[in-house]
Amino acid sequence: MDTSRPQQGHSERTVAQVGEFAVIEQVVARRSQPTTTLVGPGDDAALVQATDGRVAVSADMLVEGRHFRLDWSTPEQVGRKAVAQNGADIAAMGARPTAFLVSLGCPPETPVSVAAGISEGIGLAAEALGAGVVGGDLVQSDHIVVSVTVLGDLEGRAPVLRSGARVGDVVAVAGQLGHSAAGLALLSAGIGVEDTPDTSISALIDSHRVPTPPYDAGVDAARSGVRAMTDISDGLVADLGHVADASGVQMRIDRGLIGLDPALADAAERVGGDPWEWILTGGEDHALAATFASVADLPAGWTVVGDVASGDDSAAVIVDGRPWTASGGWQSFGAG
Amino acid sequence: MDTSRPQQGHSERTVAQVGEFAVIEQVVARRSQPTTTLVGPGDDAALVQATDGRVAVSADMLVEGRHFRLDWSTPEQVGRKAVAQNGADIAAMGARPTAFLVSLGCPPETPVSVAAGISEGIGLAAEALGAGVVGGDLVQSDHIVVSVTVLGDLEGRAPVLRSGARVGDVVAVAGQLGHSAAGLALLSAGIGVEDTPDTSISALIDSHRVPTPPYDAGVDAARSGVRAMTDISDGLVADLGHVADASGVQMRIDRGLIGLDPALADAAERVGGDPWEWILTGGEDHALAATFASVADLPAGWTVVGDVASGDDSAAVIVDGRPWTASGGWQSFGAG
Repeated sequence: MDTSRPQQGHSERTVAQVGEFAVIEQVVARRSQPTTTLVGPGDDAALVQATDGRVAVSADMLVEGRHFRLDWSTPEQVGRKAVAQNGADIAAMGARPTAFLVSLGCPPETPVSVAAGISEGIGLAAEALGAGVVGGDLVQSDHIVVSVTVLGDLEGRAPVLRSGARVGDVVAVAGQLGHSAAGLALLSAGIGVEDTPDTSISALIDSHRVPTPPYDAGVDAARSGVRAMTDISDGLVADLGHVADASGVQMRIDRGLIGLDPALADAAERVGGDPWEWILTGGEDHALAATFASVADLPAGWTVVGDVASGDDSAAVIVDGRPWTASGGWQSFGAG
Repeated sequence: MDTSRPQQGHSERTVAQVGEFAVIEQVVARRSQPTTTLVGPGDDAALVQATDGRVAVSADMLVEGRHFRLDWSTPEQVGRKAVAQNGADIAAMGARPTAFLVSLGCPPETPVSVAAGISEGIGLAAEALGAGVVGGDLVQSDHIVVSVTVLGDLEGRAPVLRSGARVGDVVAVAGQLGHSAAGLALLSAGIGVEDTPDTSISALIDSHRVPTPPYDAGVDAARSGVRAMTDISDGLVADLGHVADASGVQMRIDRGLIGLDPALADAAERVGGDPWEWILTGGEDHALAATFASVADLPAGWTVVGDVASGDDSAAVIVDGRPWTASGGWQSFGAG
C-alpha cells in the first residue's frame, strides 16, 4: 500500500500557484539527514562526507512518457524508481549511496501533489538506503523531467570497474532479470496490479514500477574479490557486452544456469511475449552482473550464469554457444 | 569568436541517427581529465578525489526557451552558461569546482552538432576551471533540458554558509551586477552582438550568453574570514534576502556605493529599461555577495555595498533606507 500518496485535496493546487521555494522547502528541507550530510539543502551547495578521500558519483535523467507514465505509476513510485536507477550505478562500483540531488522540471499546471510525491518517493527511498537528499532544483519545463545525481562511498575499497574481467572468470548475476520488462509488457497489455489476484503477476508489475537493486550484493562482491561489475540497465546481453568490450574478453552465457522463472513463463503466456527476450534484453531491473575468479568467491545472493572466454571471437556475448540475435538491449535513441 | 562552433555539415545528422552512445562517447569520453578524476566517464559511476574527506555538491537544470534560446546563444555558449551557473554555487561556499556531470535531454531530431556543442561548451568551461566532466546521460525529451551537477573541494576550509552574517558586518559583492539582465533586455529588443560596434553593449550581451562568475573571489573570501556568502542568481535583493533570513539580520544596501555602470545606463537608454532594476533584481550574472566583519577583511575584487543591521525590521533588505518595491528577483514559477 502506498500510504504516503498525496491526498486528492492537495492535488488541486499547482506548482505555479504555490511557487518554487514553497515546493522545494516542503519536500526537501524537512527530511532528516544522515550524519554524512555535513551541510544539507537550503544553501548554495551541500557538503557531504567522503571519509576515504574519494567520492563515487553518477547521474541519470528520467523523462515522463519515456521512462515512466503517471497513469501506470504513482508520483512516489516514480521517485523511488529514480533512486533505484541511480543507486544501482553506485552499487555496481562496490560503493554505498550517501547522498542524492534531484532536479525536477515540470509544467506550471502540474499539481503540487505530483511534484511533492516524486520528491517524497526519492526522499523515502534515499532514507531506506541511509542516504540524504541534499539538494534540489525545480524549474519549468514542457513535461516532467526528473534528473537525479547520486554520491557514493567506497569505504576504502578499490572501485570495481567494467574492465577487470579475465579469461576463465565465472559470470554471475545478483537481483532480478526480466521482471521489469515483464511488468511493462503486462501494463502495456492493459493488465494492472488491481486486475489480478495473482501475486506473482502483480509482483512483476511492481518490479517495473519500483525496481529493487541488490545494493548489498554489490558491496559484498567488492569485498569478495570481484573482478568486474556492472548494473543491468540496458539488458543482460547489452550490459555484459560493455564489460566484455572494456575487458577485451567474451562472455558465454548458459540459459540453463539462469533458469526460467515460472512467473515470467506465466506472464509471457498471458501477453504472448518471449520470457527469454525479457531475461536477456530487458533493462530497468537494475540487477548486477559481475565476474569472479572462481565460484568459491561468490557471496550470498549471486548466481553463476556463464564464464569468460577469450575475446578473439567477433561476438562480445554468446548465449548457449551462439550470438544472441534479438534486439540486445535498450537505448534512449535508436541508432540509425 | 566561437571557433569551436560545429560546422554546418555535421548539423544535418540527428541524435537519433547517430545513437546515444556515439554522441556521449564523442563529447565526454575523449576529454582529458584532471588528476582529481580517479575514474572518468564510461563506467557505471565516476570516482573523484575529495582530499579533505568532504565534497561540496550542487545541481541545476536549464530548460530551452526558459533559461536559454538557441537563436540567441550557440550550443557551446549554453554549455558554458550551465557550467557558470553551477560553478558559482560551489564558489559561493568557498570551494573550487572539481568535477561536472551532465544529463542532456533532447528531441530525436536534434542535430548532433547541438548536443555535441552543448557538451563541448561544458567540457571547455570545466577544463578552464581545472575540473573534469566525469559523467553524463543522454535521453529523449520533448525539448532540450541540460541538467548539471558540480562537485567541489573546500581544500580544508570551513564551508561558507548563508547563516553567518552578523550585525555590524559590511556587505560586499564581487563580479558583475545587472550585466546579464541588460544583455537579455538588449537581445529581447532585437539588438545582437552583430548589430553594434559598441564593445560595451556587445559585452553586456556576451554577459547574458556566458556569465563569468568571480570564482577566485569566492575562495579568497573564504580564506579572509568571510562570515556569509551566496551566489547572486535571483538578483542582489532577493539573494541578500536569503542571507538575511538565514542569519536573522537585515541588509542595508546603498546605491551610492554600488555606482551606476555607464554601460548599463547606455543600454537602458537604448531599450527604455531601468538600470537599477537590472542591478538590484537581475539574476544570472552569478556574482557573489558576502558579509565580512570589517572592510579590512575584503580581498581584492570585492566592493562594499552596504552593512548588516538588526533583523527586527520587517524588510530583509532595504535599499537607500527603504524596502525595494520592484519585483525583487526571479523565480522559476511565479507564486500565486
